[in-house]
Amino acid sequence: MDRRSLLTGAGLAAGTALAAPLAAPAYAQGKRQLKMVTTWPKGLPGLGTLAENTAKRITEATEGQIAIKVYAGGELIGPFEAFDAVSQGSAEMYHGAEYYWQGKSIGFNFFTAVPFGLNAAEYDAWLNFGGGQALWDELSARFKIKAFNAGNTGVQMGGWYNREILSVEDFKGLKIRMPGLGGEVMRRLGAAAVSIPGGDIYQALQTTQIDATEWVGPWNDRALGFQRVAKYYYWPGWHEPGSALALGINKDVWDSFTKHQQTLIAVCCQAETHMNLAEFNHRNAGELKKLQDAGVALRRFPDPVLKALGETSEAVVKEVVEAAKDELVTRIYQGFLEARRIGTVWGEISEEGYAQARRLALGAG
Amino acid sequence: MDRRSLLTGAGLAAGTALAAPLAAPAYAQGKRQLKMVTTWPKGLPGLGTLAENTAKRITEATEGQIAIKVYAGGELIGPFEAFDAVSQGSAEMYHGAEYYWQGKSIGFNFFTAVPFGLNAAEYDAWLNFGGGQALWDELSARFKIKAFNAGNTGVQMGGWYNREILSVEDFKGLKIRMPGLGGEVMRRLGAAAVSIPGGDIYQALQTTQIDATEWVGPWNDRALGFQRVAKYYYWPGWHEPGSALALGINKDVWDSFTKHQQTLIAVCCQAETHMNLAEFNHRNAGELKKLQDAGVALRRFPDPVLKALGETSEAVVKEVVEAAKDELVTRIYQGFLEARRIGTVWGEISEEGYAQARRLALGAG
Repeated sequence: MDRRSLLTGAGLAAGTALAAPLAAPAYAQGKRQLKMVTTWPKGLPGLGTLAENTAKRITEATEGQIAIKVYAGGELIGPFEAFDAVSQGSAEMYHGAEYYWQGKSIGFNFFTAVPFGLNAAEYDAWLNFGGGQALWDELSARFKIKAFNAGNTGVQMGGWYNREILSVEDFKGLKIRMPGLGGEVMRRLGAAAVSIPGGDIYQALQTTQIDATEWVGPWNDRALGFQRVAKYYYWPGWHEPGSALALGINKDVWDSFTKHQQTLIAVCCQAETHMNLAEFNHRNAGELKKLQDAGVALRRFPDPVLKALGETSEAVVKEVVEAAKDELVTRIYQGFLEARRIGTVWGEISEEGYAQARRLALGAG
Repeated sequence: MDRRSLLTGAGLAAGTALAAPLAAPAYAQGKRQLKMVTTWPKGLPGLGTLAENTAKRITEATEGQIAIKVYAGGELIGPFEAFDAVSQGSAEMYHGAEYYWQGKSIGFNFFTAVPFGLNAAEYDAWLNFGGGQALWDELSARFKIKAFNAGNTGVQMGGWYNREILSVEDFKGLKIRMPGLGGEVMRRLGAAAVSIPGGDIYQALQTTQIDATEWVGPWNDRALGFQRVAKYYYWPGWHEPGSALALGINKDVWDSFTKHQQTLIAVCCQAETHMNLAEFNHRNAGELKKLQDAGVALRRFPDPVLKALGETSEAVVKEVVEAAKDELVTRIYQGFLEARRIGTVWGEISEEGYAQARRLALGAG
């Protein structure tokens, strides 16, 4: 074991904060073992596996120069401590969803999902060509983090309900598991929105502690068995229409990488975002079929309900942005609005227009 | 210059066929200069630039171990000679669209676009998780080629028309520039479909040699100025709903790469597919706005026209598959049909369902 690997190996094994300005030159050329902490349970389909795939890709692409060991949420630190750990340098990188850091800045929500926000294609366009990444970099830099898009779930489902939603009135008194801004929208429409960890949702539905829950989509939801304890499966996922996932890297660690290593990490994140969405779409399609075969009742939210959800979402998002009193958050919001505006206009005559035309011409599939 | 680089450098500079079984071990470890021939005019937005980006990415990712020089169509050989050149080894790789090789096998069409076929998300799901790549590999192997998806245009536009299409009758006698299977569909509906090179379309429209043309989308179309010589801009692009682009590599050359180099190439292609679609979507949205501001009349094909186009497309695709009398082509067709079927079902309640709901709730953008 040479001095360089000893230095970095020992420092990292002890889990001490990185002394990057000193350590960086020492290990810039050698093999490094880095820690990735995540917000995901171990092996969670599409998310825990995404973090592992991202780490594996970077390790392979750099031929182990950057060897990444993944820690599921709770293994090393709690899932929501990942951001602070990377910001302070006690872990080199995290994989998670940026909206978990909304306590640091509400601006982070715009880099995962906001109700009635961007779909995956619009995120890709905004982040990479519409100025979104520069805004994200500016926000992350406040916390000594460099973040990349690394995954996207695509459109999620609206959730599982044991009460049919025929009008906005049906939200009144509804006990629903829905965290974040989506939950706030539900509250304003009269629901009792609560936060319950993923592992406890099944029992909460079974014991009628809650009447409804959102989770992800067919692939994840069927694995948790919600079809056995809920009657209706609603679409579309207005509250998470294309959740972008993220790799965050301690800025000193990022700066210590060679230019070539930085290039490889960026390429790996783009590739993983691409593959993750493809896997979600493929598996969701297959699992949806199984749910349909098992007799799950698919329901679309009625038009007036969607309109009420949309109007309330717009008001909630605007309010939290204004409450932040942060010119960067205002600029992020404006960038988001413009990306959504042009995406809606182009989408109507491209992806949406074609999908609708094909179904009209060839039937429902 | 060491012996190894001299050997490969000289061999490639002379443009001789590769003697891969002998040469491969010799240059497997060293730096190599490889030729990429393409089907694209130099600098063609989104396509010529895509080939260049793909080459640059691989060159950078491999730190110049695999240094790729790009030749636009016509620079070294004609654009449609690219496949034979790579198959025979006189160039190491091509970038192009697989449907250009339909003379070799009609099966290649399914890896770019067929009328009323897969959108970009469905291609990504099918190729990477639904068995599509294995079928593609089997087809390419017949020609000693290993192919990767490397780019996607997303949904194209239906084309520029100087005659309004109010019913299927309006296709009768229409002189339209539309190559390939889309052109055959138009012929069956009474149009005179012709092939005209991209550079000649403008004049053909201006002189009323043709009444209509398809090309790509706002980004490419506006650059050629079609808005000045055509009245109506139709959507959606039923004939090319998400054209997948491809990197093809001579199989001996591919096999001569190290495992690590192969990994990097695969990652680069995934990343480039991701970024290409994002760029098309971003730029198409921006250029569409300019076309609208300039008063271009956007038109959607009426429902009965879309139905006729859909039914005719289904018949044409089925016929060419049957005519091929090739069990591999039949399997590719079956794989394609299944990918489209599950994509249509899932898409209705995910991407399409959300896009429609958002427009309903928030307006047209």
